[in-house]
Amino acid sequence: MPDGERYAAAGVSLERAERATRGMRDLVTRTFTPEVVGGFGGFGGGFDVSARTRGGETVLVASADGVGTKLEVAVRVGRHDSVGEDLVNHCVNDILVKGARPLFFLDYIGCGRLVPERITEIVSGFARGCLANGCALLGGETAEMPGLYEGERYDLAGFVVGAVERPRLLDGSAIRPGDVALGLPSSGLHTNGYSLARRIVFEDAGLGPDDELPGCGRSVADELLAVHRSYLAALEPLLEADLVHGMVHVTGGGFEGNVPRVLPADVDCEIDASAWDPPAVFRFLARQGRVPPREMYRVFNMGMGLLAFVGRDRVQHAIGLLREHGSEALPVGRALPGRGRARLLMAA
Amino acid sequence: MPDGERYAAAGVSLERAERATRGMRDLVTRTFTPEVVGGFGGFGGGFDVSARTRGGETVLVASADGVGTKLEVAVRVGRHDSVGEDLVNHCVNDILVKGARPLFFLDYIGCGRLVPERITEIVSGFARGCLANGCALLGGETAEMPGLYEGERYDLAGFVVGAVERPRLLDGSAIRPGDVALGLPSSGLHTNGYSLARRIVFEDAGLGPDDELPGCGRSVADELLAVHRSYLAALEPLLEADLVHGMVHVTGGGFEGNVPRVLPADVDCEIDASAWDPPAVFRFLARQGRVPPREMYRVFNMGMGLLAFVGRDRVQHAIGLLREHGSEALPVGRALPGRGRARLLMAA
Repeated sequence: MPDGERYAAAGVSLERAERATRGMRDLVTRTFTPEVVGGFGGFGGGFDVSARTRGGETVLVASADGVGTKLEVAVRVGRHDSVGEDLVNHCVNDILVKGARPLFFLDYIGCGRLVPERITEIVSGFARGCLANGCALLGGETAEMPGLYEGERYDLAGFVVGAVERPRLLDGSAIRPGDVALGLPSSGLHTNGYSLARRIVFEDAGLGPDDELPGCGRSVADELLAVHRSYLAALEPLLEADLVHGMVHVTGGGFEGNVPRVLPADVDCEIDASAWDPPAVFRFLARQGRVPPREMYRVFNMGMGLLAFVGRDRVQHAIGLLREHGSEALPVGRALPGRGRARLLMAA
Repeated sequence: MPDGERYAAAGVSLERAERATRGMRDLVTRTFTPEVVGGFGGFGGGFDVSARTRGGETVLVASADGVGTKLEVAVRVGRHDSVGEDLVNHCVNDILVKGARPLFFLDYIGCGRLVPERITEIVSGFARGCLANGCALLGGETAEMPGLYEGERYDLAGFVVGAVERPRLLDGSAIRPGDVALGLPSSGLHTNGYSLARRIVFEDAGLGPDDELPGCGRSVADELLAVHRSYLAALEPLLEADLVHGMVHVTGGGFEGNVPRVLPADVDCEIDASAWDPPAVFRFLARQGRVPPREMYRVFNMGMGLLAFVGRDRVQHAIGLLREHGSEALPVGRALPGRGRARLLMAA
């Protein structure tokens, strides 16, 4: 299809959009699970949910998210194949904490000028994330919006839908005083606090993408683009065993912002910051940026990206099961009678 | 929660995010249908799909979309309460053409500086659209990304999930030679071609938002922000009666770009452009922008936002049923033996 001349002059190319679509077809269809109905390129993506909903009440759990200004790091570094994976994993974790396993994912890419090769690179990250989490990349939209995004900039949004049997839906109501909060290590900043981290790393410290991030043993680019970890594989066995009373994905707002989202109205939670040492990247950010400790724990995950509440007598069993499935875990907090609040205990 | 000082200095305010969340709580919870599980503010939104999937194979149909640079018009005009409704309706139409009714919707808002009142205004559009289409506004994300979006600019992405019994899934395979394509009127540009339309209206013609769009009898603002029509209410009775063989949502790519997405490999479709008169806004854009007729039909919907293929002997019945439910409809094309191509017939 030749370009519309006037439309192209206004900055929108139907031809580039077609090329981008062709470039992602294989990446996308490779993620299709047996439940996917219909092929690539229809108006809406179809997913046969019958097999997952037979014989019981099924709750679909859905979540929408973005990558935040980690995207600015991707643009600065010129590496675009991992932010899609970040977003899939972020979304998967958001429904995992409700006990749901992902069924399918959809993406949105907004950009100023659609560069087909760039779109393919971004979509390859979505596809890798979907394959790793066993969910289909069921659809998406790529929008070319000249003027809205400057230069090479773009934004991403991701949407995931998962399912859980109703009796196994986790909303935190099962958390009881005495429960222990196990912390599962993060792979880095995940997708939070990047506006502050970028300012500290690139402006305050004046570092470039290839410089070593002091104390981290790897480059700024590798550290800041480390992929947001998916906790699905590690936690599935615990969910199967009905060991978990509630979970928290430690994202924007940190511990004090996110833990109350799952606490019953009569339960408090104390997180003991001395229970683990924050990884080097957080220590660097705190020191270089002169960020007060309490603010660090509200903006960043500080090395613990997910908390799982388990009964006090099941802690060792849960830690063992997690370790068997490739994840460390550490008791970092406890539930106690209270009013639905989270407190971070720090050394004075 | 007082703001983190360093994070706020980097342009991100957790306090503003909290205020925005409070402002949307009522709007959102009012859209909750009985199937919604759990309240507002959890990690993922829950939806009990059991009632909709009982006794048969159910296909979930999902779609993601954006509003394109219609957003730039909203910013220029200073009216932000309708673009959310545009997006809901766009998404609803995208799954409706597969025969699916919407269950729930999620939104993503990306902005440079989070203004709580602005976010509430945008979300009110999402909520109005969800209420009108009977779907729950199940979740969303608002991301403050200083630097990525300039000034007042923002981007929106929407995501809808609907359901259809598998035997009633429409993928176009039922379209047969002889079928008639009924066109259902659009409410205006819907959400396509805005980069070109804005250039013509604001730059070429030098019009402002309050000027009358010549020949249209209403202002530039009202015409360009006319809400993308949802075809759900009009088409439900036809779907109930199994009258429809396939449908096309006429969006980016126009007739020749979208019709082939549903045609069987051995069927062509001819669209007769002389079957209807394009509304005044399209005539103005063509004339003022000197856009060739063929390009007009590839960029814009030209007054027909949805096509429904029905058997030749059911045309009058279908038109009567649509009229009873508030929609005009007109035969605008026909299916014939071929190779999956769409042709637009225009006077020379």
